[in-house]
Amino acid sequence: MLKKNSAPLSLALSATLAASLVMSTGCSNVFGRETPQRVASEKVLGSWKDNKLKQDILDFVQRVSNPKSKDFVPVEDRIAVFDNDGTLLCEKPAYFQVIFARDSAVARQKDHPEWSEDAAIKPFLTTEDSAIAGLRGKEATRLIAACQSELSAEELQPLAGQWLVDAKHKRFNRPYMQLKYEPMVELLTYLRANGFKTFICSGAGADFIRLYSNSAYGIPAEQVIGSSLKREFVVKDGKSVVVSRPVMHVYNVGPFKPIMIDEHIGKRPLIAVGNSDGDIEMLMYCTDRKGPSLGILLHHDDEVREYKYDTGAEKALQKASERGWKVVSIKDDFQNVFAAEQK
Amino acid sequence: MLKKNSAPLSLALSATLAASLVMSTGCSNVFGRETPQRVASEKVLGSWKDNKLKQDILDFVQRVSNPKSKDFVPVEDRIAVFDNDGTLLCEKPAYFQVIFARDSAVARQKDHPEWSEDAAIKPFLTTEDSAIAGLRGKEATRLIAACQSELSAEELQPLAGQWLVDAKHKRFNRPYMQLKYEPMVELLTYLRANGFKTFICSGAGADFIRLYSNSAYGIPAEQVIGSSLKREFVVKDGKSVVVSRPVMHVYNVGPFKPIMIDEHIGKRPLIAVGNSDGDIEMLMYCTDRKGPSLGILLHHDDEVREYKYDTGAEKALQKASERGWKVVSIKDDFQNVFAAEQK
Repeated sequence: MLKKNSAPLSLALSATLAASLVMSTGCSNVFGRETPQRVASEKVLGSWKDNKLKQDILDFVQRVSNPKSKDFVPVEDRIAVFDNDGTLLCEKPAYFQVIFARDSAVARQKDHPEWSEDAAIKPFLTTEDSAIAGLRGKEATRLIAACQSELSAEELQPLAGQWLVDAKHKRFNRPYMQLKYEPMVELLTYLRANGFKTFICSGAGADFIRLYSNSAYGIPAEQVIGSSLKREFVVKDGKSVVVSRPVMHVYNVGPFKPIMIDEHIGKRPLIAVGNSDGDIEMLMYCTDRKGPSLGILLHHDDEVREYKYDTGAEKALQKASERGWKVVSIKDDFQNVFAAEQK
Repeated sequence: MLKKNSAPLSLALSATLAASLVMSTGCSNVFGRETPQRVASEKVLGSWKDNKLKQDILDFVQRVSNPKSKDFVPVEDRIAVFDNDGTLLCEKPAYFQVIFARDSAVARQKDHPEWSEDAAIKPFLTTEDSAIAGLRGKEATRLIAACQSELSAEELQPLAGQWLVDAKHKRFNRPYMQLKYEPMVELLTYLRANGFKTFICSGAGADFIRLYSNSAYGIPAEQVIGSSLKREFVVKDGKSVVVSRPVMHVYNVGPFKPIMIDEHIGKRPLIAVGNSDGDIEMLMYCTDRKGPSLGILLHHDDEVREYKYDTGAEKALQKASERGWKVVSIKDDFQNVFAAEQK
């Protein structure tokens, strides 16, 4: 969450991302919170190709939102959960949080001579993306923990916030936040316009995603569920503060996704959207719901406009065909992948 | 959260509590979610006595909600957290979840002969409230775990839901949910009408509170943070399900309240309301916020209309006077304690 009235850094960031929000999600109601009053594109899901898959999604949403439908679902149960990296946002060459951690480590290495002796960090002290390509799980956590531990959410904000404004994705030469998938942003907006409450349930760190979730997707900080380091409540310079320690608390993938959804939301999602094997249990938990449900798996099969890879999604693709989850092809189902570049 | 379209039991419960919701919280917008469009009482905070304390609360809320005020807080940071037992709801003779667990254990003891050998459960297998008076912490958890372990949230719902309709508080001879504090329900409604998002942060089990939070307070399940047993993702009768195991996962009191607030919400609350020593760290975390903040401590000092006790709140009362938290006296500041009885 961006705090509007704090430092100049975050003010600048806030203005930039707020502009992006207005342009892309059209998401604000009388209280500036979800449940948008209009859909951004004049055409519903305008960045999706007009085909059967799109129609199936539209039909499902109408069926569960229409009080006269036999599949009607009361508004309080209209919960949609989205994985983040690779589902709402490009995840190559690595999770953007990992790229931030790497950039941050490179920039701060002079203050941390011990890192050059640390096998878990040293290999990544280079701006060559190849060194961190595909880095995830425990290895990524070590790097992230080195950069983020001892920081409160309030201290992380200006550091990461400035990076989100300044840093650019090397292949696309655009700020990372401009590499969110426009069709997915439209889907979020469309769901909220139909009474859904939209959540992120990600394997990446909740703290980091919360810095941009509202601006980028219209999803407030408190609807972001993610991985976390161990937290501690301490008094620091006379003020109570919650800080992270360099120890993994929850690595929110696989079975931990439904567990964390149960902990945070307390009910099964009506719609779940993911893109990898780490989303299988979340999709099962959704589609094993009594009554209607919709599982969606995004397939990265467009090397021209984005990336093409099945690695880490082989089992999910298999399950999708067994269980009737909708497989969305970036190549065949997305009219646009990213929004037009914003200078 | 009550599911409207499941079993007749929960249908009945749903209707009862929905009626109570309309009567007491007036909380529904176009999507049936928070941010109510009207305040229940024609007079704002009508169940509060018209005194300086009430005016201070009204002034604070107006100051942070008025865009022209120097203390204006953007809507996304207008977060209010409330403890539950003893803050929103009577907690005597014991937490209502403990009373439910006891009643449930008494009713099911024939199926569990092992309980009569279990020192952690046996003493409570009586309908005498004196046996569980003030039971909390680890002792309460053992009893709750015995009754709730192996159940998913979906299985707990009809059991506890029926109890909430049928069971009555012995002293007041009313269903337990009618022992919510009307002035606090009005405060929740007033805060939402001013753009606040309202959360519960309780030492009791989130699963149990979620059964009534929306109906009783207008707080949806996903805005309830509480204690929890260890969860596991399993496949049961061919369906994936998240069940609880009889092992404490988080006992959400003291420093765990700000830790869990940081995990679930990711920002400091602007308002925090509690009533006991277990709320001290949550109140500190709120009032150590940069910029405006309001800490409120409810003081149980009315033995005629409710209960009179300081036990377990001695340190909080001391801190309140040191740190300028508002101490609300049930005796002096509440015009009404409970809403008129609903037959």
